[in-house]
Amino acid sequence: MTATVNRQILLIEKPKEKLGPEHFRLAESPIPEPKDGEALVKVRYISLDAANRAWMQGATYRAAVETDSVMPGGSVAEVVSSKAPGLVSGDLVFADTGWQDYAVLPAKHLAKLPKVEPMTHLLSVYGIAGLTAYFGLLDIGKPRAGETVVVSAAAGSVGSIVGQIAKIKGCRVVGIAGGKQKCDWLVNELGFDAAVDYKDGALFKALRAAAPNGIDVYFDNVGGDILEACLPQMNLKGRIACCGAVSQYDRTPSATGPRGIPGLIVVKRLIMQGFIVMDYMDQRDEAVAKLQEWVTSGKLKVQEDVIDGLENTPQALIGLLAGENRGKRMVKV
Amino acid sequence: MTATVNRQILLIEKPKEKLGPEHFRLAESPIPEPKDGEALVKVRYISLDAANRAWMQGATYRAAVETDSVMPGGSVAEVVSSKAPGLVSGDLVFADTGWQDYAVLPAKHLAKLPKVEPMTHLLSVYGIAGLTAYFGLLDIGKPRAGETVVVSAAAGSVGSIVGQIAKIKGCRVVGIAGGKQKCDWLVNELGFDAAVDYKDGALFKALRAAAPNGIDVYFDNVGGDILEACLPQMNLKGRIACCGAVSQYDRTPSATGPRGIPGLIVVKRLIMQGFIVMDYMDQRDEAVAKLQEWVTSGKLKVQEDVIDGLENTPQALIGLLAGENRGKRMVKV
Repeated sequence: MTATVNRQILLIEKPKEKLGPEHFRLAESPIPEPKDGEALVKVRYISLDAANRAWMQGATYRAAVETDSVMPGGSVAEVVSSKAPGLVSGDLVFADTGWQDYAVLPAKHLAKLPKVEPMTHLLSVYGIAGLTAYFGLLDIGKPRAGETVVVSAAAGSVGSIVGQIAKIKGCRVVGIAGGKQKCDWLVNELGFDAAVDYKDGALFKALRAAAPNGIDVYFDNVGGDILEACLPQMNLKGRIACCGAVSQYDRTPSATGPRGIPGLIVVKRLIMQGFIVMDYMDQRDEAVAKLQEWVTSGKLKVQEDVIDGLENTPQALIGLLAGENRGKRMVKV
Repeated sequence: MTATVNRQILLIEKPKEKLGPEHFRLAESPIPEPKDGEALVKVRYISLDAANRAWMQGATYRAAVETDSVMPGGSVAEVVSSKAPGLVSGDLVFADTGWQDYAVLPAKHLAKLPKVEPMTHLLSVYGIAGLTAYFGLLDIGKPRAGETVVVSAAAGSVGSIVGQIAKIKGCRVVGIAGGKQKCDWLVNELGFDAAVDYKDGALFKALRAAAPNGIDVYFDNVGGDILEACLPQMNLKGRIACCGAVSQYDRTPSATGPRGIPGLIVVKRLIMQGFIVMDYMDQRDEAVAKLQEWVTSGKLKVQEDVIDGLENTPQALIGLLAGENRGKRMVKV
């Protein structure tokens, strides 16, 4: 039995502040046909990332999202039919298919994936999340054994892996997350040395208690108040890996930035450095090999949060921005 | 004729906002005697730096200044009498003598200086200012020929040298300074490609016009609004050398930081890095040799602003913070 309809989720209006279900609409269209050099793919798992929300705000490392078009997003997809050399039916690929059942894309926009069990790991630990954690922590953060590493959004897809890699490297690891349950999970299940609940108030003091020797590496997924609380606690020549600013996405552009910049950067001789994982794609294979080694040996636990059904993708993103996920959130189509 | 009195300028109260003459007092004390391992030095030229003001705010890379004690500050001084091996009367040294006629210091706190003509160059181009410009621009900014370098406080001791070194390295150089006279001087006398008067309003637009290809390196002496105006104009993988935050010194601690952090750092993959020149002292000799080569060949012009008389030191610092100097300000004692 072959499906004949392609369900699509369109962004119908860009949110000015909080993203809500009213910004999306479900549509249907015929399943497209591939032309020469293209392939038709069936979407299997859609990756949900805070960056999806940032794309709506304006040009980031990609063009701003257009309204009344399919919401973009990366996914693991399976080739259904191909008019491109090197791609055959059944191949697994990573591609920006957008939020829909099917997509036709030129072969150059389809990255072939190995078969991995479970397939979902291709979006979590071996996907953007795992690679972002790996390169951001090791190349920008440069943690040394015995140093203190703090990571925000620590129960998220990237943060949960950052903390575990830092443990593997012999660091003291402090996670910042929202809620006692997540904090307990970080310490009891993932082996973090301490976790700070930012919803509990008194973030600065709690961080001081959790990182009594100061912070050498801060892996920042959120920006805003949490970055501001970390800055004065950074040690001399500390490194701040700027990975995202999720606290800033679901609102109008902030009129101010964190206090202490650039004063504390000068006095403490800090490095703040932004990065995106695409810059490291030439080193992807060695990173995946290392991550696989850690996963296989049990040193790195993979947490996934799989939501069922394309129609639930908007709510899945809205919930992710509210911090309801633990580990890598994705939608099974 | 030997002097018998040591005039000293004491900081009697820490300024909460603007520094004024009321925060200082002139005192007199006997000229101290050196003990074993110490030398008595006569202060010749006192260096004035925006950092002097930062020291009053609290602990920076040095302890906070204490009230009712001699205002600290670096100077070129001459050994008068010595009970330390390796130091004889007539030797020139650099030391934190503070603002006074004479000081007794242990030999390990006296750095011997070569004889240079004019002696004032030991505090400007071959001193902290020149070395700060040299290492901050080349090691942190890493400018490449053809790139655009922007420097703030461009008519100051550090900025005027930063811009000229960037020109030597083949960059397009834009200086930000206060007032048309300084801006004209940067372009006409020092060879900057353009200068922007931040007092003229419309800083963002003026900067856009002066740096139409965006900013690759921003050498930040000031922080605040000027840093905020530069951030969105940084090119991908741009570098911000954080040298100082003079806009923040003469006021209560700012409640906010520059907008766009960390969002723009992530999206543009910027590096912001703080540094202090003391970290580079093992490379001092090669830097001075290079600076001397440029000065001798006429590629690097040295601008000094010498104020006469110890009693005028407070006003000289107050004026420096108001931006009235051009090039390296110092006091001849």
